[in-house]
Amino acid sequence: MRILGIDPGSVRTGFGIVDLQGGQLRYVVSGCIRVGDGPLPERLRTIFREMDSILEQYRPDEVAVERVFMARNPDSALKLGQARGAAIVAVVNRALQVHEYTALQIKQATVGRGHAQKQQVQHMVQVLLQLPGKPQADAADALACALCHAHTDQTLRHLQSRGVTGARR
Amino acid sequence: MRILGIDPGSVRTGFGIVDLQGGQLRYVVSGCIRVGDGPLPERLRTIFREMDSILEQYRPDEVAVERVFMARNPDSALKLGQARGAAIVAVVNRALQVHEYTALQIKQATVGRGHAQKQQVQHMVQVLLQLPGKPQADAADALACALCHAHTDQTLRHLQSRGVTGARR
Repeated sequence: MRILGIDPGSVRTGFGIVDLQGGQLRYVVSGCIRVGDGPLPERLRTIFREMDSILEQYRPDEVAVERVFMARNPDSALKLGQARGAAIVAVVNRALQVHEYTALQIKQATVGRGHAQKQQVQHMVQVLLQLPGKPQADAADALACALCHAHTDQTLRHLQSRGVTGARR
Repeated sequence: MRILGIDPGSVRTGFGIVDLQGGQLRYVVSGCIRVGDGPLPERLRTIFREMDSILEQYRPDEVAVERVFMARNPDSALKLGQARGAAIVAVVNRALQVHEYTALQIKQATVGRGHAQKQQVQHMVQVLLQLPGKPQADAADALACALCHAHTDQTLRHLQSRGVTGARR
C-alpha cells in the first residue's frame, strides 16, 4: 500500500510518500510545493497542479492530511484554508479518499507522545524511514502524517485479524 | 462578454452569470451549490465538481469573486478558505482569470454606496437585471459580484477609449 501524506500551507505545501509492505515501511519520495508570492488564484493553481502531477506520477492508494483544530488568527486561517482546499480537491478529484489526523495522533504515531516538539517529529521520521539526512520541515510533517496513517491502518488490520472490532477515527 | 460571479461559502456557494453586450446587461442564470453536511473532502469535491460543470455548460469569459478582508473567527475563516480554495481552483484549472473585488467595491457598483445593507444589494440586483423576483441571497451576492466586474470593466474601457490610463484594482 502506498500512502501520500500532505501538510498544506499558504506558502509551502509539504508532501511525503511511503510504501507499507508486509509491515515494513519504505521511503519513496518527499518534497515541498512552493507557491511564491503571486496573486492568490495563481498560488492555488500551483498547489492544485503540482499535487495533481504528484498523484499522477506516484499513484498513492491512500492519502492522509493533518486535521486543523485551532488556527492562530482569522487571516492565517483563511490562507491556510484556501491552500488546504486546493490540495484536498486535487486528491478527491482523482477519486481518492482523504483521511484526516490530528497533530496529537500524528505525534503519538511517530514520537510516541502527543506533546512532542517539531524537531523530535523530524528526527523520528528520519529514524523510522532510515533517511540519510534530516528531511525538510514541511516534508517531514507530511511524511509523519503518512506514517500515522500507516500505523493506524496496521493497528486496525491487526485488531480485525484478531476479531476485535475497531473503529477508525 | 459573459461574466460569472461567485460567492463562496462553506455551506452554500452562490453563483450568477450575466452577459454584457453593447453596454447592456442581461441575466443568464444564477443559483446555489449546497454542500450538505458530509465529511470535508466530500463537501470540497461537490464545490469543485459543480463549479466545473457550470464552467463547462455556460463558458464564461471572465470570473469575479468577493475578496475576503476580515473573517469573523479562525474556525469560520478556515472553513470559508477551504470552500474558496475549491471554487477558485475549479476556475483557474480551466485557464480562466479570477478577479477579486472587495465588499465595498461590490456595494458601490450595485447600490451606489459602500455601506449598503445586504437586502439593498439583493433589491438592486433584481432591478438592474430586471428579474421577476428577488434572487436567493447567495445567488444575489454572486450576481452583484458579476455586476461589479461588468461595471469596472466598462469604466476601464471607457477610460481607455478616451486615452486615460486606468489601473484595475
